[in-house]
Amino acid sequence: MASERIWTAALLVIGDEILSGRTQDRNIAQIAAWLNLQGIRLAEVRVVADDMDRIGAAVNALRAENDYLVTTGGIGPTHDDITVEAIAAALGLAVVVHPRARAILEAYYASRGGITEARLRMARVPEGAELIENRMSGAPGIRLGNIFILAGVPHIATLMLEALSGQLEGGKPLLSRTLGCWVAESEVAELLQNVEREHPGTQIGSYPFFREGKVGANFVIRSTDPDLLEACAANLLSRLRAEGCEVAEAGI
Amino acid sequence: MASERIWTAALLVIGDEILSGRTQDRNIAQIAAWLNLQGIRLAEVRVVADDMDRIGAAVNALRAENDYLVTTGGIGPTHDDITVEAIAAALGLAVVVHPRARAILEAYYASRGGITEARLRMARVPEGAELIENRMSGAPGIRLGNIFILAGVPHIATLMLEALSGQLEGGKPLLSRTLGCWVAESEVAELLQNVEREHPGTQIGSYPFFREGKVGANFVIRSTDPDLLEACAANLLSRLRAEGCEVAEAGI
Repeated sequence: MASERIWTAALLVIGDEILSGRTQDRNIAQIAAWLNLQGIRLAEVRVVADDMDRIGAAVNALRAENDYLVTTGGIGPTHDDITVEAIAAALGLAVVVHPRARAILEAYYASRGGITEARLRMARVPEGAELIENRMSGAPGIRLGNIFILAGVPHIATLMLEALSGQLEGGKPLLSRTLGCWVAESEVAELLQNVEREHPGTQIGSYPFFREGKVGANFVIRSTDPDLLEACAANLLSRLRAEGCEVAEAGI
Repeated sequence: MASERIWTAALLVIGDEILSGRTQDRNIAQIAAWLNLQGIRLAEVRVVADDMDRIGAAVNALRAENDYLVTTGGIGPTHDDITVEAIAAALGLAVVVHPRARAILEAYYASRGGITEARLRMARVPEGAELIENRMSGAPGIRLGNIFILAGVPHIATLMLEALSGQLEGGKPLLSRTLGCWVAESEVAELLQNVEREHPGTQIGSYPFFREGKVGANFVIRSTDPDLLEACAANLLSRLRAEGCEVAEAGI
């Protein structure tokens, strides 16, 4: 099998509210799934506070190691929204008002009390950046080369991802099949390892659960090659059945 | 105000299933809230794949910068559970079978088909480690100095946190008050910034939402000092009311 280029991304979640436990993050899972559809692997996530130095250090570390960097949070109109300043500082760029962002915000707020200094904060971008459309609430996301600066509110982040769909170069998406059994994973641990070893180019993850008073596990087979994936899944299925497991072919 | 020691922790979430988007993380929020009750600030979270080098690099970076490091995931019986090996390797320690962990697992599995090689994997710890009790499913968590190695399954992680409650030295917990208004945060951005500036030792975060067809925001005031917190909250409340906002004193 020829080795293929794997495209990777990192995600930086910016916000005191995630680190305090006040807010349950919803962006990691949605951005991970979206990246995979673009053929891009999410390689690492970091969550940091609304702090210039911490944001800057994470941005520079993560963009050096990955093809893309996505950030969420900190692009609103209030004093705790410092993502644009922090990223610009980390890259040694000036912060400027983007003329089209200003026009979008002026139009959006024309019927909502008019533009103000606070609202204009949302038109500021690192020098040289482009905008990412936000159909919902006016204030756009920001694209700066391979860095994508998205809103923290999950449904606005979703809209910004939609606006970006199909625009990032990637490789083959990681495909997956899930087989579920009402079995303790420890009973089939050796079997799983053997099947994975016999199918190079695939990976098997085991995810146990406890439900309805019983233990069970989902086994997730992953590969970028649909034929390898199916061969591995078929082999795992028959060997689990040979052990007496009732297998749910779409997972449990 | 005398400066106080702030105790910090980092959290390392280990698991391909989070990075693929298959599984919505539930541990960040619960561990963040638990740490705060212990008087420890969650300073950073990283999510990495089930990969020896990535786990090792993150462990060494995070433990160098924080008083405590908590990890979740990768301590089950299957081949993809490599957290113990990875942490031991990162610290230059051997992996050994912990005698009490072995005894716990033998007792737990006595009525469940007996101990096996796979199940014994869950008794392995980095040399010198202690155990963290798991009332639910036998396999214990692991404490190695200031590193706490917990299960990835959220309700098992919860039990391990309960077993650790009150055992970690910390400082004053960060207290918070939330005021909620049906107002666009951009309308009160300047007011928020002014109130925060006038109350040193407090921070105000603004968290907008869109609900029932209307925009609103929760303003979270945080401080380790209950008197500063109350003074700031009272001032913010009266100034929001003076602007004509109807304020929900426990947030919306």
